[in-house]
Amino acid sequence: MKKFINKIDDIVIEMIEGLVLANPNILKHTPNSKFVTRKEINKEKVALISGGGSGHEPAHAGFVGTGMLDAAIFGEIFTSPGPDLILETIQNVVGKAGGLLIVKNYTGDVMNFAIAAEMAKDLGYNIETVIVNDDIALEGSNSSTGKRGIIGTIFVHKIAGAAAEAGMNLQEVKEIAQTAINNIASFGISLSGCVVPANGQPGFIIPNGEMEVGLGIHGEPGLYREKQLSADESAEMVINKIKKSLKLKAGDEVALIVNGLGATPMMELNILARQAIKNLQASEIKISKTLVGNFMTAIDMVGFSFSVIKLDDKLKKFLNAPVITCAMVGV
Amino acid sequence: MKKFINKIDDIVIEMIEGLVLANPNILKHTPNSKFVTRKEINKEKVALISGGGSGHEPAHAGFVGTGMLDAAIFGEIFTSPGPDLILETIQNVVGKAGGLLIVKNYTGDVMNFAIAAEMAKDLGYNIETVIVNDDIALEGSNSSTGKRGIIGTIFVHKIAGAAAEAGMNLQEVKEIAQTAINNIASFGISLSGCVVPANGQPGFIIPNGEMEVGLGIHGEPGLYREKQLSADESAEMVINKIKKSLKLKAGDEVALIVNGLGATPMMELNILARQAIKNLQASEIKISKTLVGNFMTAIDMVGFSFSVIKLDDKLKKFLNAPVITCAMVGV
Repeated sequence: MKKFINKIDDIVIEMIEGLVLANPNILKHTPNSKFVTRKEINKEKVALISGGGSGHEPAHAGFVGTGMLDAAIFGEIFTSPGPDLILETIQNVVGKAGGLLIVKNYTGDVMNFAIAAEMAKDLGYNIETVIVNDDIALEGSNSSTGKRGIIGTIFVHKIAGAAAEAGMNLQEVKEIAQTAINNIASFGISLSGCVVPANGQPGFIIPNGEMEVGLGIHGEPGLYREKQLSADESAEMVINKIKKSLKLKAGDEVALIVNGLGATPMMELNILARQAIKNLQASEIKISKTLVGNFMTAIDMVGFSFSVIKLDDKLKKFLNAPVITCAMVGV
Repeated sequence: MKKFINKIDDIVIEMIEGLVLANPNILKHTPNSKFVTRKEINKEKVALISGGGSGHEPAHAGFVGTGMLDAAIFGEIFTSPGPDLILETIQNVVGKAGGLLIVKNYTGDVMNFAIAAEMAKDLGYNIETVIVNDDIALEGSNSSTGKRGIIGTIFVHKIAGAAAEAGMNLQEVKEIAQTAINNIASFGISLSGCVVPANGQPGFIIPNGEMEVGLGIHGEPGLYREKQLSADESAEMVINKIKKSLKLKAGDEVALIVNGLGATPMMELNILARQAIKNLQASEIKISKTLVGNFMTAIDMVGFSFSVIKLDDKLKKFLNAPVITCAMVGV
């Protein structure tokens, strides 16, 4: 397998240890545990917790730090963390101000975070939950689970994180997180599957000259397969779907993430960003901020996703507030 | 080809346009030109210019901004920019304080930057040059070119950038840059070649179960091929070569870059970082800062490199000074 790993069973814990050793001023880790917290925990403020299966690095632990998350939980690769682990994390970072769980909309995550929230409430913790479902690939489908949570989750971490840092209470932080979720749409395209270490080969093979549209981030195929388009055509397709979903119009203000899925070079992400930005500018949509890079990956997938959030003054203020994490620093 | 591109001839200019559209507060670009500068050019300070062939993104344009470079020049993919383009860049950003060219040690780059420097001096510009040759793979070899410049170049950008920002003069900035270069060693390993768009297929194929040791960043094979080692064994091999080259001993202080070559997941980079840090700590070598991510890539190579700089108080101060660029932000 073309991977720099040791034993497959040790991947997650070794990745956590490396992350914390490399970022000792930002992160803290209890030996052998599968969650990380900020180095300095402030239980006077609302605590934000996110997480899910591993394989999406730098999400979610890369977004733990001042102005974003207080803790991130690591499941095994593409596998939800269990309720006990989630509860242990809650007990580590949530104080009297309560805690908000930011959960991506997958059956396992939603169930396990809900069970953990109930267990925590029984212990006297004040816990609220928001479910991120920004992936418009499944919009209008008959899927019983509904839209999936993908890259737009990073906007929720950032905005809710700034709100909590500013001293807002749990209900207020939950409300701004939900407002963010309601205004986010994301969509992606991939040119390859990804190699889950336990399998050792790609979950699916895309023939040369074809692409998967509406990618998933867990090694599954996308919504449908079609003839590979150029970068500009691909970017146009995705940004137009997003504009339609958010009903964007001239004069609106947005922020944009151009996200790599793990093995897409920055060269290509910037070419994709170019067309997305030109498209929005041509529609007289103002772009407050653009982030280009690998933020929520599917291990080593060749693919990209765009995520757009429609901003009001409050969302914009929190989006642009200071942040110091491993994967996002801004002043 | 599994790439998000348009016409092959347009890759570099479209990438530049995308980068600048996404980062309008940091970068400026003259339409159709193949260099970028800081948005606000301050000709009162020493100007730092770097660049080389494209394909190494985010290097070098990702490091243009406050506290690092003033301009970056884009050659075609893996091809040195010509003297005229380098001269045009000098004319755009160098004022009376003079300019320092930071050049990686490749024949084409060294020659073209030297010609441009002579042309600029004839026009009255005060120009100095440093050559970065941090790749210890070729240390002691009979190569007439000597050691190559690779990922350690980022340390030089950062340290010289902070020195220039602090108001040091051209000779002082050159001297600190050279001191940095003298104290950097880098080395890498790859599990795949990279796909240069004009070729459409990998420059070389590494069979499963083997790896290239002493990687190059231009699609060429490494120093030698051997049986693939585990992440820990690979990290040990590389960090031990670096420790030996820099003659590191207990009590020394260093900074470490764990660099991905473009298609290596953060998961694996953190596992590699873990062992490198544990190794250094076991030798009682103090780590002032660790950076983990894609900083100088070879398009979509699966590989990693470590770069270590041995610090004195002055290098440490400049390494940790504030910086605001697209690819590195620190406060």
